[in-house]
Amino acid sequence: MAMRTLDDCFQDELRDVLSAEKQLVRALPKMAKGVASEELRQALLDHLEETEGQVERLEQAFESLDKSPRSKKCVAMEGLIEEGSHVLEEEAEDDVKDAMIIAAAQKVEHYEIATYGTLCTWAEMLGHTDALALLKENLAQEKAADEKLTKLAESINLAATT
Amino acid sequence: MAMRTLDDCFQDELRDVLSAEKQLVRALPKMAKGVASEELRQALLDHLEETEGQVERLEQAFESLDKSPRSKKCVAMEGLIEEGSHVLEEEAEDDVKDAMIIAAAQKVEHYEIATYGTLCTWAEMLGHTDALALLKENLAQEKAADEKLTKLAESINLAATT
Repeated sequence: MAMRTLDDCFQDELRDVLSAEKQLVRALPKMAKGVASEELRQALLDHLEETEGQVERLEQAFESLDKSPRSKKCVAMEGLIEEGSHVLEEEAEDDVKDAMIIAAAQKVEHYEIATYGTLCTWAEMLGHTDALALLKENLAQEKAADEKLTKLAESINLAATT
Repeated sequence: MAMRTLDDCFQDELRDVLSAEKQLVRALPKMAKGVASEELRQALLDHLEETEGQVERLEQAFESLDKSPRSKKCVAMEGLIEEGSHVLEEEAEDDVKDAMIIAAAQKVEHYEIATYGTLCTWAEMLGHTDALALLKENLAQEKAADEKLTKLAESINLAATT
């Protein structure tokens, strides 16, 4: 086995997050369909659109490195999405189910925040300035999506306790 | 199947994070043993001590609800830890391996930040004030641990590119 460099790790992580985002593009419509709150549904659909843009940005990042965009199955995201899918099958009041969906979605967001955080640090160290700019944009969107969910959770959880 | 309430979700999530923290208590010594940077090793060992305290706080949170502390296998954490274990077996320069360990550890931290974030919101909504105080303490520790790793990553990643 060849000795791995930081550049190898960077490309691996890029493939991991490309897989994660593609999985999300498939999962978000089902999530959006399963929630009761109109506001939450809209937030999930808005994030679907953002996620599609993130996939494009990741493909551009690969191009900036003269690599073809390949994904490598992200098992962690698979597990997180499965957790969210189970919630949709639970027997619960609408508000309670929505609160659980938000909790699952925030775990997804934080997985991505951690991954993009690492990718940005590595891109900077490796001097991949074009990729860095693209990854920073994705990171900022994930952080904003997480904050939006936190705000939504406040009203939905309040409804779930009454 | 009984209709689930927000309190049911809260207790479920508490069992999930208790499992996650207990898994970490077992995993961190192996991680610490496998890294090259003395500073990183110490950070992981410090976090091991914190994690043991977090398990105790979670047990106290259960007691404050008059529930016995039971854990429910957290599959997501199992996957994240497995990812970290694979890194230990990789062929790479010490600095590169350390950079990968930090990346894996930050995914773990972010999983916990998301979970404690949800638990704090729910504890507040449900009026579980004693549990809330304990959970807030754990959340603050996870955030601090993540920031410490980000700082360590800067010097270790720099070394990994040279």
